[in-house]
Amino acid sequence: MVRASDYMEHCSLSEALKILLDEFAHPRIKEQRMRARDALGFMLAGDVYSERNVPHYSASAVDGYAVQSRSTAGASPATPVVLGHGEFSWVNTGMPVGDYDSVVMVEDTSAGPALSDDSAEAARLRIFRSLTQGENVRAVGEDVMNGQLLASRGERVTCALVSLMLCAGVSEVSVRAKPRTLFIPTGDEIVSGDEWLSGAHIPAGLVADSNSLYAEAIFKSWGYSLDVAPILPDKPGIIKEEVLRAARGYDLVLVSAGSAKGSRDHSAGILSDLGCMLFRYVRMKPGRPAMAANVEGVPVIVSPGFPMSCAVTLWLLVYPILKRLSGEAISTDYISEAVASTETLSASFMIQHSSPQGVAECLRVKCASVNGEMLCWPLTAGASVLWALAEADGIVMLPEETLECPKGTRASVRLTKRVDFSKRILFQGSDDPAVGLLVPIMRELGYDFAIRAVGSMGGLAALGRGEAHLAAAHLLDTSDGTYNTSYIARFAAGRDWRRRLIFRREQGIMTAPGNPKDIRGFAALASGEVMFENRQPGAGTRVLLDYMLKRNGLSAADVLGYDRISITHLEAANKVASGVADATLGIASAAAALGLYFIPIATEPYELVFSEGFFDHPAAGALTEAIESGEWRRSVVNMGGYELP
Amino acid sequence: MVRASDYMEHCSLSEALKILLDEFAHPRIKEQRMRARDALGFMLAGDVYSERNVPHYSASAVDGYAVQSRSTAGASPATPVVLGHGEFSWVNTGMPVGDYDSVVMVEDTSAGPALSDDSAEAARLRIFRSLTQGENVRAVGEDVMNGQLLASRGERVTCALVSLMLCAGVSEVSVRAKPRTLFIPTGDEIVSGDEWLSGAHIPAGLVADSNSLYAEAIFKSWGYSLDVAPILPDKPGIIKEEVLRAARGYDLVLVSAGSAKGSRDHSAGILSDLGCMLFRYVRMKPGRPAMAANVEGVPVIVSPGFPMSCAVTLWLLVYPILKRLSGEAISTDYISEAVASTETLSASFMIQHSSPQGVAECLRVKCASVNGEMLCWPLTAGASVLWALAEADGIVMLPEETLECPKGTRASVRLTKRVDFSKRILFQGSDDPAVGLLVPIMRELGYDFAIRAVGSMGGLAALGRGEAHLAAAHLLDTSDGTYNTSYIARFAAGRDWRRRLIFRREQGIMTAPGNPKDIRGFAALASGEVMFENRQPGAGTRVLLDYMLKRNGLSAADVLGYDRISITHLEAANKVASGVADATLGIASAAAALGLYFIPIATEPYELVFSEGFFDHPAAGALTEAIESGEWRRSVVNMGGYELP
Repeated sequence: MVRASDYMEHCSLSEALKILLDEFAHPRIKEQRMRARDALGFMLAGDVYSERNVPHYSASAVDGYAVQSRSTAGASPATPVVLGHGEFSWVNTGMPVGDYDSVVMVEDTSAGPALSDDSAEAARLRIFRSLTQGENVRAVGEDVMNGQLLASRGERVTCALVSLMLCAGVSEVSVRAKPRTLFIPTGDEIVSGDEWLSGAHIPAGLVADSNSLYAEAIFKSWGYSLDVAPILPDKPGIIKEEVLRAARGYDLVLVSAGSAKGSRDHSAGILSDLGCMLFRYVRMKPGRPAMAANVEGVPVIVSPGFPMSCAVTLWLLVYPILKRLSGEAISTDYISEAVASTETLSASFMIQHSSPQGVAECLRVKCASVNGEMLCWPLTAGASVLWALAEADGIVMLPEETLECPKGTRASVRLTKRVDFSKRILFQGSDDPAVGLLVPIMRELGYDFAIRAVGSMGGLAALGRGEAHLAAAHLLDTSDGTYNTSYIARFAAGRDWRRRLIFRREQGIMTAPGNPKDIRGFAALASGEVMFENRQPGAGTRVLLDYMLKRNGLSAADVLGYDRISITHLEAANKVASGVADATLGIASAAAALGLYFIPIATEPYELVFSEGFFDHPAAGALTEAIESGEWRRSVVNMGGYELP
Repeated sequence: MVRASDYMEHCSLSEALKILLDEFAHPRIKEQRMRARDALGFMLAGDVYSERNVPHYSASAVDGYAVQSRSTAGASPATPVVLGHGEFSWVNTGMPVGDYDSVVMVEDTSAGPALSDDSAEAARLRIFRSLTQGENVRAVGEDVMNGQLLASRGERVTCALVSLMLCAGVSEVSVRAKPRTLFIPTGDEIVSGDEWLSGAHIPAGLVADSNSLYAEAIFKSWGYSLDVAPILPDKPGIIKEEVLRAARGYDLVLVSAGSAKGSRDHSAGILSDLGCMLFRYVRMKPGRPAMAANVEGVPVIVSPGFPMSCAVTLWLLVYPILKRLSGEAISTDYISEAVASTETLSASFMIQHSSPQGVAECLRVKCASVNGEMLCWPLTAGASVLWALAEADGIVMLPEETLECPKGTRASVRLTKRVDFSKRILFQGSDDPAVGLLVPIMRELGYDFAIRAVGSMGGLAALGRGEAHLAAAHLLDTSDGTYNTSYIARFAAGRDWRRRLIFRREQGIMTAPGNPKDIRGFAALASGEVMFENRQPGAGTRVLLDYMLKRNGLSAADVLGYDRISITHLEAANKVASGVADATLGIASAAAALGLYFIPIATEPYELVFSEGFFDHPAAGALTEAIESGEWRRSVVNMGGYELP
């Protein structure tokens, strides 16, 4: 198709969607005939009518005796009517009433012990209630009638409809075939899942093809199948050939472009050559480089390579076009369907957030209900970060007009997990892997334990602002060598916060395995030859570092890398394990986890600090139980470097 | 197991559930190992940790030049820093930065045209911005770190987690095996689906085994598989053997008992012999005869045979025990999950409803938003009626304390369909198949048209009470032979209701094919030999009947069956088609649909009557379009007996 290159660039999300849906406003939707019993989840292509009466006979609705209603005229408990042989017939519920027109419930009758209506003896039945015609009889067609409309074209086949169609004698139905989609992963840096997991060394620069797996999984959850092509190298000629072939064999083609700009430029060229570009660059974050085209009547959508960008493209652009290709209406709130959100929650931002001007932003958030207030906070916004998507409770879509979201801004969270927030407690504070081990135990008990690793002081401050149920601290008061007390008092400001020592742990200097730079203590950190990795201000570990430096007559300026910051023990340890840093200060369990050399420096108490109302919380008992459980205590000791009280 | 027969009978729903869940409080849940990529939807049996750093190298976050941050110190637009060969390296987004520690975006640099860092010529790069260490670099492990907890045991595997596990190098996971369930249909009156659809004559008294199909479908929608046993006859010895065998091979056994009381007595005896009865008779409607037992450590639940009773047993008792056997927490609102309800709506009862004392009742309802008020009305409550379940918008659970629900009572509707109520208009009035034909056309246009067949006067009255968007009438004013005007004026009471004639239709007397009783006109109805089927008071057809009787010098008392009532044309016609009645008065299309003999009597106008605000409703335009569409007009004419204006 030849068209002037007048496609839109840098359009808003709603413009992009409109362009896409207008371009494919009336797709030809194939129909397929299938057995009605297999049609669950499909959309009907035509109206479905009953082919029978259900029931197909007059059935008794109760257990009792079928009788002619007129023969019961005048019956009452005081004036029973007596019927003789041939005037009544026992029927169970569901049995045909034959020539009789009503059924008297067995409770309204009395008879001799051996009641049988074909006994040679003249068996009699006393009836204590008069009946109207049709009483206790399910008429022919009471459920559905022959010819009755069961469901209309365009309706989805539900469980109820499947079984109803069976009863109604419908063997086959015409349904709208679901669209067939091909997902083509491309990029020189992408490695197939099998190869990624094969155990072979993966050179720097290569990443797993996780987009194919995510797309396959989400299509399945939407009720659609997805074919996945083998990974294509970033060669325009090859990609072009595959896209064209795919457009000729599928109803929708998705291309996952490499992340690099060059790769995206290729895609744009390919789409322009093959068909008609619809738009390029969408003002959404993540997912900005997304583009779409019409290739021989088939929509082709190119998503950026970053996992989160690909996911957002799938939710915001691919899901609606799939619905269009299925002949289904697109809900106003299709985003909730796309992310399989079961509920939308109103929450307020626990921390400030800035959103780019003119760009619709998709945030992955976690939530917690603290002091009766539903709070949410964004997890990292990196487009390449999958963990945040897996960890999130839900999604917040910030419209393009949104700029500043001060703390307290209200947001709609489309929950992607079913969470009973009344059973979740929010911990903010010093991160320790042992605390993480409480999570599965709490969950087993039916509760949840959410963790924000903000450092000891960050946690106490959050507790003070009513933004957490509990905090944890291991803060050394350098003036008197005590831990936590003065800090807690300062943040508690008179409130009744309780504390509980849950373990003591070893802090020390970690180095690469084997301690290649022969670091013996803090003096080595000031040698100028050791790159240190520090913790963030407010972290108890940093407080300890400053104290130890002072005790050794050193200052921050002496330490190379003092300004380099990691937020958790594991992050800092990881810097050492990967060679980016030579040493850091941290806990024994982090060093052990990464196989690092560990020089013990101090053993410090780690205390949980509870807000004043904490022990009224439903989860409080479970937390106590978890902390006191043999399971937790053993797993903590196993990590090494912990002493339990 | 021998236990005193002290099980509970006639317990409340919550008691039954508690008994069941307490009995199986800690089921042994098998684990299975599977490929992480296949684990979507399963619950993790153990914690999952990352086996790699992601990324596993320091990656550029942008397109630009990797540099040593310290070499850019002091750079600004006014004071650019110039780097030479070996001091920088082009990197695309995602490429490794190697020994460099930061990346300057290409926008913050300028270089000569043929920029290459391995050119023999001393290529230079001007940098206009100073960088900090790590700027624009995704650190090793920025997404997930080696050893980081990805998900805890008990969590469900989501799409995001599946792809995250791949990136994190997790090949296999241990998941909780899903429970295996066997469904055993029993009953002498049940016929397999294949036989039901085979075309063979089905004798009176037999019904389709729709429960197996419904159970299979709903298990699938819940994410569980279900095995279905062949239908067993109502012979205790055989059923007992099968149940025992099933209990030894499955984690859960469901038995669909025959509907008859005798059949249920068998079930109770079987369960008592094989194991330990837990409860029998639950105060819920429908589903009262449900019972459960523990057979060799396996839950066995017997549901009543009626389709709706079986469905309710599945939702209210089977779903929670399935969750327990899966090791999943049971939500407070598990019912919404069981019925796949996407949303709960608050609505008020449009009509009064009486609920049995002490019994939790499950109502199938439809909803509509009229005049800003969300209304709901129960569909038929029959336990055997599947159509109502398929047609319903949702479910209302009335607690056992509920007795009287006067009109206006507020109820929570668990919606089982996604309905945009702003696009649905509610029609109440005289039923005509031609009006039903508007439904698919309205739906195609993106709107919905809900119909309550309450007769002409019922419809106008509902319109007058603000309980419908439109009504329809074909009411003859016998005083002057005009149609509708006087009635509309009476109900409208001054409001501006508009009318629109949408067709004229033939009314006549319908008899069995071939008119075996040689009925020529109304005189025959008074012969005493013809059983008539009437319509309900307020139906336009009944008004016509009364008029025609009067014109023929007859009275209601002369007509045998005058008191027998059907609610719609099809229902009345069906009585004739099935031989329950000899004749009825109704429309030509109903006769044609059922192949009945038709004696035309009169042609009457059928008018839609619109509430005063109707034409402001979003769906008004679509309705007009539907009525004027060639598609509708043709399909109406095809039915026969209609004249279009």
